[in-house]
Amino acid sequence: MPIATSPSNSARALAAAKVEQAAGILNELGIDAWLTFVRETTESGDPVLPIILGQSLTWQSALVVTAKGDTVAIVGTHDADAVRSTGAWHEVVGYVQGIGEPLRELLDRLAPRHIAINESTDDVKADGLTVGMYKLLLEHLSGTSHAGTLVSAANVIRALRGRKLPAEIERLRTAIAGADTIFDRIDREATPGLTEAAVAGLMHGHARDQGWELAWDRAGCPIVTTGPDSMGGHGVPSTTLAIRPGNVFHLDFGVRIDDYCSDLQRSWYVCQSGESRAPDDVQRAFDAVLASIDAAAAALRPGVECRAVDAAARSTLVSRGYPEYTHATGHEVGRAAHDGGGVLGPTWERYGKTPFLRVESGNVFTLELGVDVPGRGYLGLEEMVVVTDNGCAPLSTPQRAIKLLG
Amino acid sequence: MPIATSPSNSARALAAAKVEQAAGILNELGIDAWLTFVRETTESGDPVLPIILGQSLTWQSALVVTAKGDTVAIVGTHDADAVRSTGAWHEVVGYVQGIGEPLRELLDRLAPRHIAINESTDDVKADGLTVGMYKLLLEHLSGTSHAGTLVSAANVIRALRGRKLPAEIERLRTAIAGADTIFDRIDREATPGLTEAAVAGLMHGHARDQGWELAWDRAGCPIVTTGPDSMGGHGVPSTTLAIRPGNVFHLDFGVRIDDYCSDLQRSWYVCQSGESRAPDDVQRAFDAVLASIDAAAAALRPGVECRAVDAAARSTLVSRGYPEYTHATGHEVGRAAHDGGGVLGPTWERYGKTPFLRVESGNVFTLELGVDVPGRGYLGLEEMVVVTDNGCAPLSTPQRAIKLLG
Repeated sequence: MPIATSPSNSARALAAAKVEQAAGILNELGIDAWLTFVRETTESGDPVLPIILGQSLTWQSALVVTAKGDTVAIVGTHDADAVRSTGAWHEVVGYVQGIGEPLRELLDRLAPRHIAINESTDDVKADGLTVGMYKLLLEHLSGTSHAGTLVSAANVIRALRGRKLPAEIERLRTAIAGADTIFDRIDREATPGLTEAAVAGLMHGHARDQGWELAWDRAGCPIVTTGPDSMGGHGVPSTTLAIRPGNVFHLDFGVRIDDYCSDLQRSWYVCQSGESRAPDDVQRAFDAVLASIDAAAAALRPGVECRAVDAAARSTLVSRGYPEYTHATGHEVGRAAHDGGGVLGPTWERYGKTPFLRVESGNVFTLELGVDVPGRGYLGLEEMVVVTDNGCAPLSTPQRAIKLLG
Repeated sequence: MPIATSPSNSARALAAAKVEQAAGILNELGIDAWLTFVRETTESGDPVLPIILGQSLTWQSALVVTAKGDTVAIVGTHDADAVRSTGAWHEVVGYVQGIGEPLRELLDRLAPRHIAINESTDDVKADGLTVGMYKLLLEHLSGTSHAGTLVSAANVIRALRGRKLPAEIERLRTAIAGADTIFDRIDREATPGLTEAAVAGLMHGHARDQGWELAWDRAGCPIVTTGPDSMGGHGVPSTTLAIRPGNVFHLDFGVRIDDYCSDLQRSWYVCQSGESRAPDDVQRAFDAVLASIDAAAAALRPGVECRAVDAAARSTLVSRGYPEYTHATGHEVGRAAHDGGGVLGPTWERYGKTPFLRVESGNVFTLELGVDVPGRGYLGLEEMVVVTDNGCAPLSTPQRAIKLLG
């Protein structure tokens, strides 16, 4: 099989389209210039780099976009040709000894009033600048008029990551379809007695056969829960706990195809001898979870604060007599399963300001929650939706009935 | 084939050994405590995390080692069981709403005079703390006695990464042996007319057949140069330029096996009809490169400044009438092909303070340089060596004669 040795043409076209989108966002936000400042990115990568470049950089490198549409990359001389070949950057400057001088020259020429840099307390995807690189940047700008102009690029990056282009939505649909085929195979292959680790092994094999990456860490992708004794959460699938009649069987899984991820949860009830439907306690729990996700979808539209979507789902679940879940109702999905930006979560310390962010058209969110059914195990659902101009539309094919096994 | 769903036992044992080694280093350096502060590490990973934990963390997480041997992990409740299962951390605290309170409680109990954090202007491997996380840390510590005690952990991390344990040297030898088998196959398969991209494709296939990752970005691993018109450097292998008689054929390549990397360069001369050895201009260049690498090896021993090793090689090459190369003579290798720490380089701005660092026993370095042979192409060699108590010893089997093709 031929192996790509460079970004595909479609990946290059997407990077170029996102850089162009960034210039428009800067214009809209009234920010003159945006600087991504990185080094040795195979080991310490700014999360925004794959979006706007799609290759690694070795020495200190500056990627600058302006509201006027300038796109300039200052990179080590060895990287210059490869960066030029991406076509996403109109001007590429290669240097040998140090970036300080060419960077100062560029900023003097562009003369931005503010320079947005990649730092954010709340959005990990907009927080790619390390403390050491920040100190180096301050050294490079020391004594210039640019030293005092640094602001956070969090809003720029959030909009750029969050507002998916049609080509990105296509890729997300492909990643969802991939996960669905694996859920379908497990629906046929899962039987009582199969351990959690064996289920994970089957799913890993199916993904590998297709050449798909997992959407997150292998150890927890899938999360497999087979009953009330499962570690669940971010635990490791057990080599002893197995699918058992009378229990709920639950998967949290996604794949990465063409750099974009899916993140979905599916739940089954494992019938006992003589059963042909889920017992009432399981059905009630499923209905409550589904109703809560529906409540979130009904609340999700441009302009609403993320926390309001969480509150709609959370209050629905609680009103049906179930305890609050200890996580957020949803997160953005894109190149990463957790794609930064707004979090459909409660206003807990660990979510910072993300629940106060406002939903935007083009955002892709998960809607996910579940309950522990006493004596049966964890029952959860997770869907993916895209925010439209006046609401949201499903990207995944929602699970609207409990699946049955056995 | 069974697929591991969690770190192997040997990976866990290695992480535990490195955490124990860290406590000893803190003692030696007189630093009371070392704090690694991270979040969502699948997307934004501190380069030190794989060494001391070997799994990802989701919410804000604090990993604290003290000179007394305390090892405490404060992590999101969902991650706690998985962190416990690594066995590398004696105390694991899971939290639900926020890390601020448990972190302050821990630091109050440990009462360190100084807390080393992962920030460094010069060592990317010690610069994992982002600006946003640093601000959050300052918020968590605001109003406590710990706020003013933060120092850089660069020396801690450099020693921890750089002083390879015997188990790490074993893994590096395995990665070198893997790359050697692929060089050997190319030695048999390479023929005039084969394009650079085809050579890269063969090497990627061989690595994939063995289940080995490439040691760095696929687009530039291998770097393939087939003559004077090659992009070389960090360029992309050409689909039109091919191995040609009368030219030098050069590869820069490595694989990652069991998380550890190799990084080696090999050079061939492609004989023209009637030739049975390299012509004088190529042989002279090879001899000069080899002599310069030997000069570096002779200078490499504990206590010497890295720049002195570079100067030994660089001056040898220049004394033989060749121009200076535009890169350093060597870098550390470990979990990454460029493993941070000391750089055997000149005192150019882009190398920061790394050429002034002193070599330590247990460090593993590349020794690498080359020359452009006019009309023939780039000829370079790269070996890997481990620093011993009074010098250095080869890890790779050095190329001491020009290889011939065709």
